Amino acid sequence: MTTSPIHAYLTDLHARHALNASGNVADYIPELAYANPEWFGICIATRDGVVYEAGDTRQPFTIQSASKPLTYGLALADCGEDAVLRKVGVEPSGDAFNAISLQPQTGAPLNPLINAGAIATCGLVRGESADEKLGRILETFGRYAGRELDVDERVYASESATGHRNRAIGWMLRGFGILSDEPTATLETYFHQCAIRVTCRDLAIMGATLANGGVNPVTGERAIDAAYVDHVLSVMATCGMYDFSGEWLYQTGLPAKSGVGGGILAVQPARLGIGVFSPRLDEHGNSARGIAVCRELAADLGLHLFDVSGRPAPAIRMATTRRSVASSRRRPPEAADHLRAFGSRLRLYHAQGSLVFASVEPLIRDIMERAESADCFILNLKSVESLDGATARLLAQTHSTLEPLGKSLLFSEASTWWESLIAAGAPRSAFFADDDFALEYGENGLLERRFPGRTWDTPATLAECALFAGFDADALATLDRMLEHRNYGPGQTMIAAGHSSNELFVILRGSAMVSIPTRNGVTRLAAFAPGMSFGEIAFIDRAPRTANVTAIDAVACRVLTHEMLSRLEREASLLKIRLLENVALGMTSLIRQADAELAALR
Amino acid sequence: MTTSPIHAYLTDLHARHALNASGNVADYIPELAYANPEWFGICIATRDGVVYEAGDTRQPFTIQSASKPLTYGLALADCGEDAVLRKVGVEPSGDAFNAISLQPQTGAPLNPLINAGAIATCGLVRGESADEKLGRILETFGRYAGRELDVDERVYASESATGHRNRAIGWMLRGFGILSDEPTATLETYFHQCAIRVTCRDLAIMGATLANGGVNPVTGERAIDAAYVDHVLSVMATCGMYDFSGEWLYQTGLPAKSGVGGGILAVQPARLGIGVFSPRLDEHGNSARGIAVCRELAADLGLHLFDVSGRPAPAIRMATTRRSVASSRRRPPEAADHLRAFGSRLRLYHAQGSLVFASVEPLIRDIMERAESADCFILNLKSVESLDGATARLLAQTHSTLEPLGKSLLFSEASTWWESLIAAGAPRSAFFADDDFALEYGENGLLERRFPGRTWDTPATLAECALFAGFDADALATLDRMLEHRNYGPGQTMIAAGHSSNELFVILRGSAMVSIPTRNGVTRLAAFAPGMSFGEIAFIDRAPRTANVTAIDAVACRVLTHEMLSRLEREASLLKIRLLENVALGMTSLIRQADAELAALR
Repeated sequence: MTTSPIHAYLTDLHARHALNASGNVADYIPELAYANPEWFGICIATRDGVVYEAGDTRQPFTIQSASKPLTYGLALADCGEDAVLRKVGVEPSGDAFNAISLQPQTGAPLNPLINAGAIATCGLVRGESADEKLGRILETFGRYAGRELDVDERVYASESATGHRNRAIGWMLRGFGILSDEPTATLETYFHQCAIRVTCRDLAIMGATLANGGVNPVTGERAIDAAYVDHVLSVMATCGMYDFSGEWLYQTGLPAKSGVGGGILAVQPARLGIGVFSPRLDEHGNSARGIAVCRELAADLGLHLFDVSGRPAPAIRMATTRRSVASSRRRPPEAADHLRAFGSRLRLYHAQGSLVFASVEPLIRDIMERAESADCFILNLKSVESLDGATARLLAQTHSTLEPLGKSLLFSEASTWWESLIAAGAPRSAFFADDDFALEYGENGLLERRFPGRTWDTPATLAECALFAGFDADALATLDRMLEHRNYGPGQTMIAAGHSSNELFVILRGSAMVSIPTRNGVTRLAAFAPGMSFGEIAFIDRAPRTANVTAIDAVACRVLTHEMLSRLEREASLLKIRLLENVALGMTSLIRQADAELAALR
Repeated sequence: MTTSPIHAYLTDLHARHALNASGNVADYIPELAYANPEWFGICIATRDGVVYEAGDTRQPFTIQSASKPLTYGLALADCGEDAVLRKVGVEPSGDAFNAISLQPQTGAPLNPLINAGAIATCGLVRGESADEKLGRILETFGRYAGRELDVDERVYASESATGHRNRAIGWMLRGFGILSDEPTATLETYFHQCAIRVTCRDLAIMGATLANGGVNPVTGERAIDAAYVDHVLSVMATCGMYDFSGEWLYQTGLPAKSGVGGGILAVQPARLGIGVFSPRLDEHGNSARGIAVCRELAADLGLHLFDVSGRPAPAIRMATTRRSVASSRRRPPEAADHLRAFGSRLRLYHAQGSLVFASVEPLIRDIMERAESADCFILNLKSVESLDGATARLLAQTHSTLEPLGKSLLFSEASTWWESLIAAGAPRSAFFADDDFALEYGENGLLERRFPGRTWDTPATLAECALFAGFDADALATLDRMLEHRNYGPGQTMIAAGHSSNELFVILRGSAMVSIPTRNGVTRLAAFAPGMSFGEIAFIDRAPRTANVTAIDAVACRVLTHEMLSRLEREASLLKIRLLENVALGMTSLIRQADAELAALR
């Protein structure tokens, strides 16, 4: 396969930054000094689980401080937000990575991404023993990475042997009561956690998991409850890069966390995860190449959180009225005329994407502004990717605001959003399987306002059928003798898709429905009442039937075949001419309706 | 008009929080103590300039520290990023609002939102005199607010008379050389800036201006260059709420800035501006009701920056192939058969919304994956709201990656995005006015591969016309005598929209085009070659013509009228029957094509 321009871009980026040899490999943990300073990987993982890689993206190294936000998320899930906030703050300290930075009165570390805060966070992870805690941390990290992870025992041993300052922090936290037991076990958990082995690719997928609301996009497994993702990203945004955090966010706009192993885990929220790995560190303790690569990535690819030059796609991908889009129920002429004239009182919206306050506000505004001039609003939710609580409440409230005015807001194809809308107070009667049924309901409402109590499905005589318009009594009598009289029971098949096409139907009593099977059952393409005919397209071009037609109730109909047309041609050619003219006339209205709908959808 | 549920929500929110009487009106500036502690306004302004208000949203008060990010933006525009960063950092200090917080070596204030940083920022605003500087600040703030603003002279005088600590900061900055002149004038600018009178509504619109990339959404005027908006929002995110900034971002996820006058200006980037005003302050110096309201707003309306439960609408709103969507050029049978069989080699994508790396990546991936199985990719940009540099470069690179493989990426309806795509290297020949012309180009490519050098517009005989299919030589001769022979020159009108419909055309030589006038010229609805007929729909249903038909080149045609049909009915009814059958047959293919297109667009 040809190389994607995205992969070509990453390869080029990697080649250029490989020349940067600034910084030094960490050596305050002796074992880290064995890293090859030339290791260098760049990896991007998308929110839907596609991974782009360049360089040493599969080389294992220890996660170090990049572990901190992940463990913080685990502590939030274990203890709840309030308990965690009592023990660890969320204020940036402006201090270096090993500063102690405790809140003077309470002794709570200022934030969970400095060592003191990370050790306190380890103390909050649930588990009877240090082993159990480490097991839960490994399992969680593994869910983020999408594979089983392990600890680099040599780095752990080195880290534990030289972690004097961290032991001092542990005892201070014990003194303030931030740690409730002797710190020894918690410190072991902390040292182990820092020595978990990951790859650059793992970091990118971990980032993509956060970008994706906590679900690993490659495995589909949840690593963290969605409710805590915003908290984890917040501390990464304000405290992720030590005393370089403010400048980092200013320049790249990416919540991120670095580790002295040389890794950087960065997130474009709702979009991407980024992993960069290169062991040489700058004076802040961040990977020197990593910082430079992320800066360039953010600028080249426009990843800055606050790059507001973009404008989200509108939540409404289409807004139209019954003038352009009708239900598939064919209406008798008088009803059709009324619906045509008052079509703008029935409005149809197709929503898409994430429905959040700012994106749904224009829709609600539009509906409220038209609450006088329209009677029925249909909101199709088929292309909606998510619908948050605020949106559900506002939509349900819009429904209940309209109801006393005799207006309705209907939901079509609500699928899984059904539940939150119902929970927010929308009545079950407002939901329809698809636009077609919602439109039909709205059309019936318009007709009921104009013709109260009128029924539209009374049996028709041959003379009332559009196909026989302009025929005199003799002609009708001739036809009635020739046409086949046929009856169907409710649900019975009148036309089967794939079969040949020698019949054109005219309904005199009952109604029938054209449908095609779909994943969720059937989709109705048309519904016919007495006086209407169907089956003419395949009848004329003799291609096999493309849809099924079934009787909705007891149907009495007349059937015209090609043999009868041939007989007419020989015995009463004028009748055949009238018939063909009426068939063609019926087709022109199908074409005009389709053209109007196409114009609305384009 | 009925009250919108959004307005109802704000009114209720206001009523509930009006009961909160915690905190105290600021009195360290004596004049501020005269504020009515019960004043309380909440205002939301959308990115498209719609404003929702509750309470005292038109009550003037002084902007105080909420001025700081706006002046910072002005300094960035005046001096450039590098010069500003040399004088003022962007690290959160973790300190209170009046802490001095200078970088120990350079004396640079840690960030522009503490007093020291804001005074240094005032020193960077261009202007020969304090008056000129203040004038430029007032003008800039006025553009953010969308109205002329002024200074509350009593508050200014009070602020200047008691600003001892700020004078001390000014002299320290002078000592470090951060201010290059005596601080007196700069301090006057600073005191004036803090005393600018705004309303809660102004703050919301200022926020919406930042959300909207620097353009005031109500007036359409630009207040700050788009390139600096991300920097202003970054410092608001990390440093906006004094030593409460980390917790604020954690809880609300809204870049914001408070002032001791009681105002809070908050931003949901790319979405909303929020203003809250209530003079009672909490212990951090932030409006007590303001903090509580913003917290509830963020939770109720799902405004948190890092709420990644939402998923942006996909950049591709439709992807289809020539199987469903064809150019309006009607093809002779052999060409039509080939295009039908190989239709999947011609792909059409409709993009929408903001094209940024993460949204355009799936499109590029799809194209590259299909680079073997398809020949031509058309990308329609009509519904694109913005297209950033990264996207332009990637699309241009995708074009040049495909070219050596003999494949093409075409752009249709590129409108203003044309320029950046050309600048990124896309050739002019890749742009088409609309899908129709791009599809025609792609179809011609498919035909050229299969039938190299073949021309399709050679003159036709009557026998070759679809309308006369199945007619024998005698019948054709009869018709040719009856039909009107007519010629048109290039560009000449053959059918005029709105006119009556007594003619059906058959082309024997040359080609013709159906079009409707649109805002930007005309849209082509169909193009016909020799052997084809047109005008049949209005001819049959006798409604007025809905489009114009013009000759593209020299056209020779035959014209059928209703009078001729009546004559045929009397003199050769079998011919009329054949004609009607052929007309109906032509219509069935129009209906089938429209149904396929409707299915693709839905």
